[in-house]
Amino acid sequence: MANNLTKQIDTLRQRSNSQLLRHLKQLSAPKLLEEAIHYSILGGGKRVRPILTYLVTNILGASINLADKPAVAIELIHNYSLIHDDLPAMDDDDMRRGELSCHKKFNEPIAILAGDAIQAFAFEVLAKANDLSYSTRIALISELASGIGGNGMVGGQVLDLSYEKKDVELEKIAYMHSLKTGSLIRSSIRMGGLIAGADPSTLSLLSDFGNTLGLIFQIRDDILDVTGDKAQIGKPKGSDKKKGKATYVTILGEKEATRRLHEQYTIARKLTAELGPDGAVLGELSFFIATRKH
Amino acid sequence: MANNLTKQIDTLRQRSNSQLLRHLKQLSAPKLLEEAIHYSILGGGKRVRPILTYLVTNILGASINLADKPAVAIELIHNYSLIHDDLPAMDDDDMRRGELSCHKKFNEPIAILAGDAIQAFAFEVLAKANDLSYSTRIALISELASGIGGNGMVGGQVLDLSYEKKDVELEKIAYMHSLKTGSLIRSSIRMGGLIAGADPSTLSLLSDFGNTLGLIFQIRDDILDVTGDKAQIGKPKGSDKKKGKATYVTILGEKEATRRLHEQYTIARKLTAELGPDGAVLGELSFFIATRKH
Repeated sequence: MANNLTKQIDTLRQRSNSQLLRHLKQLSAPKLLEEAIHYSILGGGKRVRPILTYLVTNILGASINLADKPAVAIELIHNYSLIHDDLPAMDDDDMRRGELSCHKKFNEPIAILAGDAIQAFAFEVLAKANDLSYSTRIALISELASGIGGNGMVGGQVLDLSYEKKDVELEKIAYMHSLKTGSLIRSSIRMGGLIAGADPSTLSLLSDFGNTLGLIFQIRDDILDVTGDKAQIGKPKGSDKKKGKATYVTILGEKEATRRLHEQYTIARKLTAELGPDGAVLGELSFFIATRKH
Repeated sequence: MANNLTKQIDTLRQRSNSQLLRHLKQLSAPKLLEEAIHYSILGGGKRVRPILTYLVTNILGASINLADKPAVAIELIHNYSLIHDDLPAMDDDDMRRGELSCHKKFNEPIAILAGDAIQAFAFEVLAKANDLSYSTRIALISELASGIGGNGMVGGQVLDLSYEKKDVELEKIAYMHSLKTGSLIRSSIRMGGLIAGADPSTLSLLSDFGNTLGLIFQIRDDILDVTGDKAQIGKPKGSDKKKGKATYVTILGEKEATRRLHEQYTIARKLTAELGPDGAVLGELSFFIATRKH
């Protein structure tokens, strides 16, 4: 990966972190809830989704200042979903990013309610993003809300739970992931387009790229689950297999999963090339995600 | 209560039900999630909040057609909060409206995710309410999101759980209820004002009325918990006391709680009179809520 992109990503990650902190300071809530929210959101994270929004906004020629609030909203949603996914009734994960998950650090009701409050706050941040026109804000809220609901992220989590300990064909697993992980990644990318006032054909291209990047993200995740370093991925190796989860690796094997990862990466480069020379950075980012260690 | 109002309320309740049904048909989700959402939302309910939005919109001279989608969004939010409140980790209620609660009828993960998806859907419905201007939609989303977050409904639920089995002074209980129940009732009323383009002084009056009506609602709820008929209120009598919850009745006794209920009702009549002759219907509705049997 070009050194230049590493620097750009680091800068955007810092920007995303400081924007999250700034907005969370404006969130007023009972003390314990506030602590749980700050703990869960500010405890680290790659900030891939807000970085995508920033990059797309920039590539399409708009000021990245305009992406600050949408980027916060997207990362808030991602974090609420992690808190709920970790719950005992769901994936039952005690650890997240190498620290105790929210319900272990606090308790289960606080974790449920922290997630609920964070979701509401994400929409509040978008609604109050007064550096964006009303119509842009509505387009962003509409995009995000439909991306994370029953036909998006939450629907994917329902399918994921229903497939546990079952033999499920790859097609179904792929569809599940396209909802569970893919929807929010695609929305993060499309929201950059909406901020910049992209035309329908560019938005459609961004959707395709989002779908491909979501797939890259997921296949790499599945590979890391069997090959990754516990300290780096923040949870024990092989935890998918232990839970009886069908993944790209358990179904296809590591070799074929890796081949499909490369295939999707080739598609990603092709799609980003269509965005012109500035789109190259998204291709490089795809490489970064396809080869990440955690 | 005037027979006329009973009819008006019934008509608006039916309208709210048919709008909910119409919108839920547009919600696409995995089958089990869809079933859980339909079960939880369409299984009954007084529809007090959407009725409030319709009434205020009408009183302020706007077409109630414009309130259809906001009314759906409000009732969706109310129902998501009931699903999550009933969870084992929260109030642990097996019954809701005389039927099994969502997590008993389905299971815990589905109940958590149904609530999550419903919250997102509420904001999607508001964002896509294309009979309202972009700026009105943004005002409504902003109002609703801040009313149901950490400094509103969810914050109230956190306080409620933290007060269980504790001696808590009335002031704190009142504040907790002003968040937990009061915020959404106030938002339902204010949203009618926003739909009708009310001026700031009218919106402020609506806020005051909302706070009063929220209090009426809660005190009556607490009284019904000890005097109500199990079949009518849909849960066993005295369930607050059994859970060690401090209520207006456990702290003040039934007689003093009833006196305060009357006091708030007098305030409600005074506030609604300020809205002019058309405001009388809200005064009558306050009476209806102060004397309801379930």
